Amino acid sequence: MTCSGEKHSINVVALAGGVGGAKMVDGLAQVLDPDCLTVVVNTGDDFEHFGLYICPDIDTICYTLAGIANVSTGWGRSSETWNAMDTIKTLSGETWFKLGDRDLGTHLVRTEWRKAGKSLSQITHDFCNAWGIRVSVLPMSDEVVRTIVVTRDGRALPFQEYFVKYQCQPEVSSFIFEGIEQARPAPGVLSALEKADLIIICPSNPWVSIDPILSVSGIRQAISNKIVIAISPIIQGRTVKGPAAKMFSELDIQPSASAVALHYKEFLSGYVLDKTDYKESRLITQWGIIPYETNILIPTAEDRARLACEVLAFYLKLRRSSL
Amino acid sequence: MTCSGEKHSINVVALAGGVGGAKMVDGLAQVLDPDCLTVVVNTGDDFEHFGLYICPDIDTICYTLAGIANVSTGWGRSSETWNAMDTIKTLSGETWFKLGDRDLGTHLVRTEWRKAGKSLSQITHDFCNAWGIRVSVLPMSDEVVRTIVVTRDGRALPFQEYFVKYQCQPEVSSFIFEGIEQARPAPGVLSALEKADLIIICPSNPWVSIDPILSVSGIRQAISNKIVIAISPIIQGRTVKGPAAKMFSELDIQPSASAVALHYKEFLSGYVLDKTDYKESRLITQWGIIPYETNILIPTAEDRARLACEVLAFYLKLRRSSL
Repeated sequence: MTCSGEKHSINVVALAGGVGGAKMVDGLAQVLDPDCLTVVVNTGDDFEHFGLYICPDIDTICYTLAGIANVSTGWGRSSETWNAMDTIKTLSGETWFKLGDRDLGTHLVRTEWRKAGKSLSQITHDFCNAWGIRVSVLPMSDEVVRTIVVTRDGRALPFQEYFVKYQCQPEVSSFIFEGIEQARPAPGVLSALEKADLIIICPSNPWVSIDPILSVSGIRQAISNKIVIAISPIIQGRTVKGPAAKMFSELDIQPSASAVALHYKEFLSGYVLDKTDYKESRLITQWGIIPYETNILIPTAEDRARLACEVLAFYLKLRRSSL
Repeated sequence: MTCSGEKHSINVVALAGGVGGAKMVDGLAQVLDPDCLTVVVNTGDDFEHFGLYICPDIDTICYTLAGIANVSTGWGRSSETWNAMDTIKTLSGETWFKLGDRDLGTHLVRTEWRKAGKSLSQITHDFCNAWGIRVSVLPMSDEVVRTIVVTRDGRALPFQEYFVKYQCQPEVSSFIFEGIEQARPAPGVLSALEKADLIIICPSNPWVSIDPILSVSGIRQAISNKIVIAISPIIQGRTVKGPAAKMFSELDIQPSASAVALHYKEFLSGYVLDKTDYKESRLITQWGIIPYETNILIPTAEDRARLACEVLAFYLKLRRSSL
């Protein structure tokens, strides 16, 4: 797939969470020269379960790029089986986090290699090689960062418990990124940001997917003098998937495309929102951010490539206007 | 299944390793009142792989008793899938030990529960309940014992590496049961032995399945004044499965049914050998052991029940003659 006949060679760094991030990255990977795309992935969702080191966002990104993702759920593997889970259920083990059999293999190897001293970025690199992924996928950090959801009733829930076990039911009051002070950007992150022509903030959850990445020391600064385009994860006040809109409400912010733009205001050059939210463009413009309206619902590979082309064309327009 | 119309209520403790042990235990479980059968299982083969706590012999025994074993391999689960393994292979993880998807669930729950402080005997008890196993299956010990195979070329190989990774190729010179000095019999083992009418030594490997059990402090003594019957794991100088015969040769002992009887001589009352080995009965008799010749190849459930009935009838005969 190309945009008007050739692969783009714009150097892009995409900041991404899981499902929404994977869709955008899938589009970008289709239309960019693979050497030009680096994906920096949130690891705040990572957790240990059954002793396994699980990286939900990295896995979703990699499975999607490798073409082995379950496209109907957005997470996990295609042609998946659930026989280990079946045994776990029979034995009354914990079943709140669904571990597919193919997916389990990923966690088993990652856990083993981490114990052997390999860094998460090295492991991710090796996995990408094995899966034939040619773009660069980097964890935001090799150090452990854990997103904790602080709830209104005073609990501090590890993200996956909030997200999967409690199905995002508890009302949130704030977020803690445990370990963030010690976290350095993974090898390759800062150099990719430095040489980037364009930073894309994927349509991921601002609070728990993008903020952890931006909170890693040096990353916010590295994007501050770059052209940064975000794609809205919210359409008509609702998220396509996940709790972002619910979180905005619980934090007493009306959930909307523009609320996300405002969240990123300090460094945002351009903002891609759904054409049905066109009324918000005026507000976004007032904040000094250039809006771009289009269809941002991208369920299919074709939709994703189309949106990626539009975002890159939008970037070229922004660059011309800033020259 | 019964022997001549009713369930036996002889109190039996069976000492067992993996595949051969499971077959014999399967027969005994068919014909004994479940309250009358306790299986004490070797744990010297246990090991950690991919961070999972794996108990090959306990699993083989339990899968067989639960009717969920792969009857063609003798180990692992029926209707098994290998999708986790497929991922591990793609990612260049270690593949020498085959982890089926259903089987993986067992290891994941056991590992988790051990980390939570549950003992192996408690875990095994809970697994048996979940699988509807009514006979009592006990690990020989809750303490960790590791069988190390010392090879002629001076290596000390953990058992599963010798057995699976190196396919029993290295020549053995001796065996070490690491941790055996600290190992106490698991709860229930000594009391079961005490009330036992009959101790059955299953057709398992004497060196690496039965000797570890007998080496746990107190067990050898507990069987010393009991009627003990062993079933030969060797027919016509060869083992049905596994390296027992090869080990005898490498230890400069001619592999034979009688060689196994001699190995157990100090406490053996009766010995069940294959009828094709009838010539060895005279020698066995000379050692003060009563031989019993029959067909000891027991691939099917019916064969196993038949042999179990014969062994119990043999016991009744021994008991009558000892009164």
